[in-house]
Amino acid sequence: MYRPRAWIVTIGYELLIGRIVNTNAAHIAKELTLRGAIVDRIVTIGDSIDDIVSTIREALQRADIIVTTGGLGPTDDDKTLEAIAAATNRPLVLNSEALEMINKFYSQRGLPLTPERLKMAYLPAGSTPIPNKVGAAPGMLLHHDTTFIIALPGVPREMEEMLPLALDKIRFIFPKICVIEKGTEIKGIPESTLAPLLRRASKKCLDCYVKSHPKGHELREPIIDVKVLAFGNTCEEAEKKANTVLAELSKLIGEHGRSQ
Amino acid sequence: MYRPRAWIVTIGYELLIGRIVNTNAAHIAKELTLRGAIVDRIVTIGDSIDDIVSTIREALQRADIIVTTGGLGPTDDDKTLEAIAAATNRPLVLNSEALEMINKFYSQRGLPLTPERLKMAYLPAGSTPIPNKVGAAPGMLLHHDTTFIIALPGVPREMEEMLPLALDKIRFIFPKICVIEKGTEIKGIPESTLAPLLRRASKKCLDCYVKSHPKGHELREPIIDVKVLAFGNTCEEAEKKANTVLAELSKLIGEHGRSQ
Repeated sequence: MYRPRAWIVTIGYELLIGRIVNTNAAHIAKELTLRGAIVDRIVTIGDSIDDIVSTIREALQRADIIVTTGGLGPTDDDKTLEAIAAATNRPLVLNSEALEMINKFYSQRGLPLTPERLKMAYLPAGSTPIPNKVGAAPGMLLHHDTTFIIALPGVPREMEEMLPLALDKIRFIFPKICVIEKGTEIKGIPESTLAPLLRRASKKCLDCYVKSHPKGHELREPIIDVKVLAFGNTCEEAEKKANTVLAELSKLIGEHGRSQ
Repeated sequence: MYRPRAWIVTIGYELLIGRIVNTNAAHIAKELTLRGAIVDRIVTIGDSIDDIVSTIREALQRADIIVTTGGLGPTDDDKTLEAIAAATNRPLVLNSEALEMINKFYSQRGLPLTPERLKMAYLPAGSTPIPNKVGAAPGMLLHHDTTFIIALPGVPREMEEMLPLALDKIRFIFPKICVIEKGTEIKGIPESTLAPLLRRASKKCLDCYVKSHPKGHELREPIIDVKVLAFGNTCEEAEKKANTVLAELSKLIGEHGRSQ
């Protein structure tokens, strides 16, 4: 089954100094995964042209989809579009559609188009702007070589609103599959005891992600969260795969699990 | 002022599929920043030997400190130490100190050293184990060429407990500086209006990070969180730098800010 490969590039010094937690990365990773993409890498870098250019160039060689967040705003340290233009050897041009969005946003509020505001309408040549219903800065979709680059704002409310619009525009790249996540909580067995059983159970589905996640204390009161992410051509198929793994695990625990 | 450069490498498919938010990265980034390091990059990859090896090799060329999280546990998909050994061309050897920690952990609980548990005592040759008071898996500190590699578990409670122990072991690498973050909340001015004022104010301190972060709605009820991160040889110096920027910003807002 063909599944597109994705990189997420989150941009902003506030992430590198640990002022904010990168909830955007998790949100985008989940959305891409549920549409059938495989997220290979999440990279966080600062608002530095050089770092963004080199990361985008590396991602262009590896990924079918690149989603960036941050650096689209009016301030001087918002450098993402300039960097994407440089990485793809395209000029940054005034995009008439983006200009219209920004012009409408500010004129409705009786505010002038200052140079800082106008900056947000310059996109790499060939881009399609993604409308922003929450804030001012439009996003951007660019098809370069065989990769789709989606640039979204860093403000979570804006990004979350715009991501589905952008992904819908490239929906033909995603496989027609159903993705299901099923889980179970296993109490009273340390992770180190569960490990070999989980390994055996996960062999029942070779294209599932099976993951154990300790929640309680390893020995005093071990609680292991087991999650199976399964893919299928139909939801029935995906669910059946996940159930097979969980049923096998349950059987193995019954046979050996509580002995050590 | 010399400041060591750091990379954070967070490992685990659960991050790439968006099941969990990467709070570890923010926590480590903040701790490193407050000790005076510059975090250049945060990379999230899956539990794949190839991806971990290539990321560690790249980081070794760029960073003085590499902190990894995840992949130290007893399960088959915990591959971090094997990958660090490969990336540094070192054998994975049974570390007697780590063995003692693990042996003590399980024997106190009357549990045998299964192969899965013993696996956690194999560290790249030349490593020092970092004790884990919360869980079973020891962390690892390795000085390779000119870089310190610190490998910590992915469970936040374990990582948070162990990080200071590891950073204290390399405290000589950090500058003797004081880092201060000061902020202010500016209400009623859109970010696009604030941008040029912020740019002018931040010129008052060239080695500060000045960042604006919109919290309210861009125009209806704009609230901009402005943060200044300042470094000094003393805390007084750092505070003075941050205050200079904030005072200049306040002055500029008084002069021009509310006009457009």
